[in-house]
Parts: sequence; C-alpha cells; structure tokens
Amino acid sequence: MKGEVKLGILGGGQLGRMLMQAGLDFNLYTLVLDPDENAPCKDICHEFYVGSFRDYETVYEFGKNCDILTIEIEHVNADALEKLEQEGVKVYPDAKTVRTIQDKGLQKEFYRQHNIPTSDFIVLKDKEELQQQQLNFLPAFQKLRREGYDGRGVTRLSSEADIEKAFEEPSVLEKLVDFEKEISVIVARNANGEVTAFPVVELSFHPEHNLVDSLFAPANVPYKLQRHAIEIATRVIEAFDMVGILAVEMFQTKDGQILVNEVAPRPHNSGHHTIKANYTSQYEQHLRAILNLPLGATDIQSAAVMLNLLGEPGYDGEAAYEGMQEALAVPGVYIHLYGKKYTRPARKMGHITVLGKDIEEAQARAEQIKNVIKVKA
Amino acid sequence: MKGEVKLGILGGGQLGRMLMQAGLDFNLYTLVLDPDENAPCKDICHEFYVGSFRDYETVYEFGKNCDILTIEIEHVNADALEKLEQEGVKVYPDAKTVRTIQDKGLQKEFYRQHNIPTSDFIVLKDKEELQQQQLNFLPAFQKLRREGYDGRGVTRLSSEADIEKAFEEPSVLEKLVDFEKEISVIVARNANGEVTAFPVVELSFHPEHNLVDSLFAPANVPYKLQRHAIEIATRVIEAFDMVGILAVEMFQTKDGQILVNEVAPRPHNSGHHTIKANYTSQYEQHLRAILNLPLGATDIQSAAVMLNLLGEPGYDGEAAYEGMQEALAVPGVYIHLYGKKYTRPARKMGHITVLGKDIEEAQARAEQIKNVIKVKA
Repeated sequence: MKGEVKLGILGGGQLGRMLMQAGLDFNLYTLVLDPDENAPCKDICHEFYVGSFRDYETVYEFGKNCDILTIEIEHVNADALEKLEQEGVKVYPDAKTVRTIQDKGLQKEFYRQHNIPTSDFIVLKDKEELQQQQLNFLPAFQKLRREGYDGRGVTRLSSEADIEKAFEEPSVLEKLVDFEKEISVIVARNANGEVTAFPVVELSFHPEHNLVDSLFAPANVPYKLQRHAIEIATRVIEAFDMVGILAVEMFQTKDGQILVNEVAPRPHNSGHHTIKANYTSQYEQHLRAILNLPLGATDIQSAAVMLNLLGEPGYDGEAAYEGMQEALAVPGVYIHLYGKKYTRPARKMGHITVLGKDIEEAQARAEQIKNVIKVKA
Repeated sequence: MKGEVKLGILGGGQLGRMLMQAGLDFNLYTLVLDPDENAPCKDICHEFYVGSFRDYETVYEFGKNCDILTIEIEHVNADALEKLEQEGVKVYPDAKTVRTIQDKGLQKEFYRQHNIPTSDFIVLKDKEELQQQQLNFLPAFQKLRREGYDGRGVTRLSSEADIEKAFEEPSVLEKLVDFEKEISVIVARNANGEVTAFPVVELSFHPEHNLVDSLFAPANVPYKLQRHAIEIATRVIEAFDMVGILAVEMFQTKDGQILVNEVAPRPHNSGHHTIKANYTSQYEQHLRAILNLPLGATDIQSAAVMLNLLGEPGYDGEAAYEGMQEALAVPGVYIHLYGKKYTRPARKMGHITVLGKDIEEAQARAEQIKNVIKVKA
C-alpha cells in the first residue's frame, strides 16, 4: 500500500464524517461532495466541494480525481458512477447496485428474483393504480420508489379511508408485516469476495419520526433466528455482488420468519454502536472492504445501547447541548456529536453509545440518561 | 455546553492527531501549532500554524485565540503559558506543571519533596561536577535536564570508562534501578478534582532506540503491586494539582518496590491501545478532563498488545507500507497510521493494536504479525 489513497465520498453528513474519522488510521486523502456548505465533513476532509451528488456532471467531475469513490447516501447520480467505473475509478458500491437500491420498486423486485424473503408487495405507477389494487393489500405501507429517507416518503395506509393521503408518485405498496421485532445485520464484502457479518442488532423506531430511536446489541432474538438473519444478509450482499458494507434491515415476524425490509449500501445508523462496542467498527469495515484489505473481526467487546440524539421539538437555530455533565457522569456513556451547526426538530445531531458488561447493564445505564441530553437552540 | 469550543494544541504530531480524532465527537474547533509544515495534524484541524512552540511570542499569539490550550509535547514555552493563564485562557496542563516536568532535575526534586518513591539521583550542572560525584552513583543513567525525548538525551554510564561519553550540559544522574519490569499508569484529573486511572500496562523497550517497542495490557504484575502503582500515580497527579492526563512511567523493582521513573502530562505512547481496548481512550479522557466533563470508565474491553511501527533502518524518503494484507488478515489486528509523509530509520510512523479475549490470545496474535508490516521508502 502506498502512503496515500485518494478516497472520494458522495455526501458529507455524519456518516461520511465518521468514515473519515476511521480513515485517518489508514492515511487516506479524502475528498467530499455535498450540497450543504456547512456539511459535517467540511472542515475535516482534504478537499471539500459544494455541489449536488444528484447531478451527472458534478459527480463525474468530482469522481474522476479519486482512486476510490464511495457514498454515504444512496441518492446519487448512478449514471455518473457507471461512467467513472468505465474509466477505471473503483466505485464501491457499484452503479448497478446503487441503481437497484435507490429505487424501492427495483429493490423489492430484486429480492423476489433472488428468492430473498421479503413482504408481499406491488409496484404502482400512480394513485389511480393504487385505487384499483388497494383492496388486496391494506393494511400496507406505501413507499415512494425514489428519495425516501429517514421516514420521509413513507405512509401507512390502514384502510380505504387513508387512500386520500396516499402519494401520487410511483410507489411500492408493501403488505403490513405483523412483526415481533425489527432487526438489522450489517454485512461487508471486499473485492476478493470475503464476507463478514456483524452480530444482529435490535432496533426501536421513534413512533412519530419513523427513524431509528434506539438500538440494542446484542439483540434479544433466539440464536437460530440470528443465524438465519445473518445467512439472509450474506445472501443479499452476494446477490448484489457488491463491495463495501450493506445494512440489511429485517423483520422478525410473530410466526418466526425473517423478512428483508430494506437495505442501505453504506454505513448505517444501525451500526453506530460498533465504534465503541465491537472489535471493528462498521466504518473501518467499510474502508477495509473498499481498500480490498482483509475484513476485521466483528466480535462484540461490550454490550451496547445506541440512542440517536435528535433536535428537540420547538428549536430551530444554532445548536446548544444540555445535560452533557449529567449524562457523561454515568459509566459507559459516550457521546458522538456530528458537528452540525444548526438544529431543527428531529434532526440527527449526534448519537450516544452506552456500554455495559451485558445488555442488562447497558440498558439500565441507558434508562438513566435517556432524555437527559437535549439539543436546543 | 455551547456548540463549539476552540481548542489549541501545541504540537501537531501523532498525539495531537489522535486527540483531534477523538475531539470530533465533541464538536471541537481545533487550532494547531507545529514547526513542521507537513505535521500529521496539518490537514485535519480547523486552523494550522507553522511556528515554534518553544518561542514565547509565537505561543502567546497562538494561544490567545483559544478557549482551552493543551499540549502534545512538553517542550513548550512555559512563560507564554503562564501569561495566557493570567489572561484567562484555560491552560491544561498549567505552566507550573509543564515547567517542572520539562526539566528532569526539577521533576526529580518534585518527587523527593512530595515523598513519591523514585530512584536515587543527583542534579549536575556540568561534566566536571559529574567527574567529582560519579563514584557513588555508577552504574547510572545520565539524562539531560531539558529536551530529552524518545530516548534522546539519555546515556548509560556503567563505569568510569564511560565518563568520556557523558553529556556536558546540565543533567540528572540517576542510579541504575534493578528492575523486573517497566510499567505505566495513565491517570486523569478534571478541574472538579475527579481522578481516574487506567489499568497498569507493561512496557517493553527497544534495546537500541530506547523507546517503547511494545506494550501489554493488562500487565502481568501482582495485583497488590498494581494497586500500589495506581495509588502512586494518583498521588503524583494530585501533587501536581494538574488538569488533563498524566502518564506515569514506573519501575517494578526486583525487590517489589514501585519507583516513578518519569512522567508526561499529555497523551502518551503507553496509552495508544486504549483507543481499541478500553471503554474510554486516553485521548477522550484527556478531552473530558480539560473540558471539565465527568471522566470516563477506564475498564478494559479486550486484552491488548500495542506495537510501535517504526521506520525501517536504511530507508529515508516517502513512506510506503508493506505487509498490510498479511497483518490485517490476523483477527484482532488494527493499524493506526500517523499520516507522516516521510519515513526515516526508527521514526514513529504508526502503531498496531492487537486485541484478544485474554492477554495470551493477544500475544499469540501479536507474535504472528510482529515484523510483518514494514515502513520503507
């Protein structure tokens, strides 16, 4: 390995920031593209470009200066990725995988084609088609095919009365799953084809914002189902034939099935705790994968609870953090702020990892500090 | 805590770099002063200044823009620190502590004054005084009072025949200690007076370069002596009445005593493994201390061996790393490169942390990869 590899990252948010934080240990030279001039990556990369990662020309011009190009968000211009691949840039994940994943319709069809268990669905071109087909499917979630993110672009249609609030745009209608738990497995694959999986984690979603609220690792899920979930996640990354990490969100159903909900081909909120709790973090694992280095051990060092730190409702403006003294006084509590200057309600401003010798200890400590740290303006 | 604290660091080497890497999680705004325009911190701090941290005016001008000023090397201008303290900058460690520690004569006298066990010594103003006093003291180590670092400024005087090679400058002559092991305890103290200690680690020094070669954590030292070493380290940091972290290097003598060898009031080579192996890293602990936050738990998550990665003899020039594939294929092996463009023989270019469920596993893995990674040009 020569001294310095030029790594480009599409997106300059917290995921990119934590990726670069890990990248320091590998002497990487980092370039970042983000539309926000105050993006969290701005001051800590070597070269920062303000521009849209959705725009063909912008992505192409940015990417052609990189040895390796990766993403921290999947809503990027896949045509530009394809062009860069043809010109010899190592693009991880590749254009084909990104194109499939960024369209929830193609993503669901991909699972069906590859015999990957997933909830029943139909792809809809508009609201009219929804009105024709709804009856077999309600209750269901309607998800926009494109641009859904952190709970945006998703709506629950419980009965005919909800059709009114349905999306007009092309969407996927997914039959509601009667699940016991939502879980996630992060898998990684390098160019040599080596695959590793992180242990299963259990997710808890915010009732309103529909984004991960907290996470428990290890998950309280029967061993056999954990093995099954890891096996499915491994099949998914191999089916995509992709390089990098892939977060596979799944349902553990009440009747003991594991169904894939959706995937993200990048570091993911459900892997933040690995920075503190596992031998290798998801960020280092992604770097090892895209640098084609041997993947790291994913063993748990400590049990962990991860809490997202969201902007407090009612505050909009320059962020200020309350309760740090109180929270950090509890053993095992670690804060990760994302360097975002401005807060707004439910904006992801940071996360807290709570370690313990076992999950009970971590949970008891998490209970003590839950709602103690508040992000106000 | 407001969104951003301006933290100034005197010295821009690897210790400063890892401190900033940890500092990202606290939204710190970082300023660095270093004489080397290619210093490891250069590209990852918010403001980088090329200049001497030994120069009064340079340090004063740099420091007056900071909320908190800290160091990653103790050979800084203490008069400037004192002036800045008077003007309200939070200087951690404070001028008084830095002044005592940067002079090995004052440091040894400090131990004597505070009844801290240390090897017998005499302070010498020149070689002539050495020639008069030598007989009671040989075999001994002669250490320059000032500017000693990483094995420089230290010479062993075994017998009268060695006097020829002795230093001319003001020095300390320390009676040779018949030690079993060299150990280190890193302690931290915040402005509230809270003190924590990391578990004892065992150091192994390079026979030629006289710098830490490898480290084992936890140390294979009797429990009672470990408790004693921690108690002594705690007394030292309290005697200095300092804020920040303090690495206390000690001898475990063959007759079961613990003697303080020397201290460093900053992150230290003997704490690198804490990034991967302990709940809290030494870097985060230093930040918590100087931000006056509650100190973190220092529990071990995994056993660890730390190996310094030194520039290979015979190579001088732009660094290239060999053996990464082979080394990282061993489970539990983590590399930390320091972003130094140029290598030279024995230059500290990075370190490797090898984790294991116990010290035997970590040591067995370390044996597999020792001398596998080589830094050449």
